[in-house]
Amino acid sequence: MNEFDDALALDPLQDGTFAATLTDDWAIGHAVNGGVLMALCAKAAGVVGKAGHDHPLSLSAVFLSPGLDGSSRVAPMVLREGKRMSTVSVDLVQHGELRVRSLVTTGHLDDHAEPVRAMPPAPRIAPVEKCVSMADAPEGSVPEDGFFHRYDLRLDPDHVGWAVGAPSGRGELLGWIRLADGRDPDPLSVLAAMDAFPPVAFDHGARGWVPTVEFTGYVRGVPAPGWLCVRTQTTTLTGGLHEEDCQVWDSTGRLVGQSRQLASARF
Amino acid sequence: MNEFDDALALDPLQDGTFAATLTDDWAIGHAVNGGVLMALCAKAAGVVGKAGHDHPLSLSAVFLSPGLDGSSRVAPMVLREGKRMSTVSVDLVQHGELRVRSLVTTGHLDDHAEPVRAMPPAPRIAPVEKCVSMADAPEGSVPEDGFFHRYDLRLDPDHVGWAVGAPSGRGELLGWIRLADGRDPDPLSVLAAMDAFPPVAFDHGARGWVPTVEFTGYVRGVPAPGWLCVRTQTTTLTGGLHEEDCQVWDSTGRLVGQSRQLASARF
Repeated sequence: MNEFDDALALDPLQDGTFAATLTDDWAIGHAVNGGVLMALCAKAAGVVGKAGHDHPLSLSAVFLSPGLDGSSRVAPMVLREGKRMSTVSVDLVQHGELRVRSLVTTGHLDDHAEPVRAMPPAPRIAPVEKCVSMADAPEGSVPEDGFFHRYDLRLDPDHVGWAVGAPSGRGELLGWIRLADGRDPDPLSVLAAMDAFPPVAFDHGARGWVPTVEFTGYVRGVPAPGWLCVRTQTTTLTGGLHEEDCQVWDSTGRLVGQSRQLASARF
Repeated sequence: MNEFDDALALDPLQDGTFAATLTDDWAIGHAVNGGVLMALCAKAAGVVGKAGHDHPLSLSAVFLSPGLDGSSRVAPMVLREGKRMSTVSVDLVQHGELRVRSLVTTGHLDDHAEPVRAMPPAPRIAPVEKCVSMADAPEGSVPEDGFFHRYDLRLDPDHVGWAVGAPSGRGELLGWIRLADGRDPDPLSVLAAMDAFPPVAFDHGARGWVPTVEFTGYVRGVPAPGWLCVRTQTTTLTGGLHEEDCQVWDSTGRLVGQSRQLASARF
C-alpha cells in the first residue's frame, strides 16, 4: 500500500454505502483537500457502476462544508447504466453533514484512447531537476500542513514569481507533480492532481484560501508511470470569482486530464 | 411573454416541486434541447435558494434520458445557503424517469461584476449582417425541427466549411446568436445559448447527433441587450470523446458565459 491508496480505502457497509477515513495528513489547515474527497467519490462510483466501468470519465462536485479529520460515509447512487458509461451520484457525508455532492460518469478509458484525432502537446517546461520545489524554500518556511508533504510538486522557474511577491499577472502556473511516496499515477490520482496545485489566482496577486464553488474534471486517458506535467490558467477574474482551468499530461506527453473550477479569490 | 419564457414557465406544486411543460418547439428530433432543460433547472434553483440568490453562477448537469414533448416535474433541493451563494440540487423528471440531474450554485451576478481584473476580449468576428444563417441555405434544406426556429444563429463566414463538407480541422466555431423572437438575453438564456451551437466536433468532420456526457456552465455577468457572440472550441478528441468549450460575450464585449461539456462524436 501507499499513502494515496490508504487515503482512498473504502469499507463496504450493508446499506450500500462505504466507510472511509479522512485524515489531516491530506489537509491544509483543518480542511481535507478537495482532490482527495473527489477521488473517494470517483472510486466509490467505479465500484458500484456496471462491471468494467471502473474509471472516472467525468466528475462534477460542489463543496458544502469542509471535510475534517475523522470517519466519513461515501454514499453512491447509480442513476444510469449504459453500454459504455454509467452515471452515479455520490455524496460524501460526515456526522450527517453533507461535505461533497458529486455527479460521476464512469467507463473504461481504454475504450476512449484511440484514435487520437486532436490533442494539445505538452507545454515547454523546464526539466524536473531545474524546477523549484518547496524543499528549495528557506528552512522553516514550509508549512506543516499534511497536504504539502503528500505531493512532490515542482514549479517551472518562470512561474514562481507569485511566491516571492511578484505575480506575473498572466494567470498561469506550470509544473510537475507526483505523489511524494513515489506511487505512480492512475485515473484517480489524475483527478486529485487537478486540485493539488497552488491557486492560479495567486499569479494575479490573490492571497489566502481560495474556496471552490464548483469543480468539474475529465480524465482522458490512463497515465503512464512517472511525473505528471500540470498547467493551470485563468482568463476571467471579475468581482472576486474566477475560473481555473487545468490540463495534465503524462510522462509520454499524452493529455490525461482536463478540469475547470469556479472559485473565489481574495486580494 | 415570449417563446423562451414560455418554455421556462414553472408552476409551483404543494410538495415543493414545479410542473413544467416540455415541447417539440425546442426539440431536435424527439429530444428537447439540453440548454432549455438546464435553464429550467437553473430557474427553479433561483426560486428556492436564499432571497436575492436569483442568478445561476454555475450549473453542472448529467443527462440520463432524452426530454420529450409533454409534462415534466422540476424538483429542487437546497443543499446549502451561504451569505453570497446557495447550492441547489435539481432533478428534471418525466413520468418517473430522471432526465437531468443538476448541481446549481446561485447568487446575484451584480455582486461579482467588479472589479474586472482579467477578461478575454471578444474575438474578431464578421458583423452580423455578413455572417451566414440557416436562412441562407438552399430552400427546403433547413430542418423542420422546432429548435432550429427558436434561435437566430449566424456563423462567421470563416467557420462554415463543415456545413458544406469541408471542416477546417481547427475545432472551432464562431458566430452570433439571439432568440428568434427578439427577446433580449439574461443569465438563463446565456446558459441555454452555451448548448445551442452546432457541435464543434463537426469542424473535425464528425456527423450526426453528439450526445453530451456532462455539461458545466458558468454565468459570469448579466448580459447587455442585443446579440451574443459565441465561440466554441475543442482541443482533445480521442476515442470518440471530446471536450467542447464555449465562451459567450455580450453586445458590449463583456464575457458573460463559459462552459465545457464532455461529449461523444461519431465519424
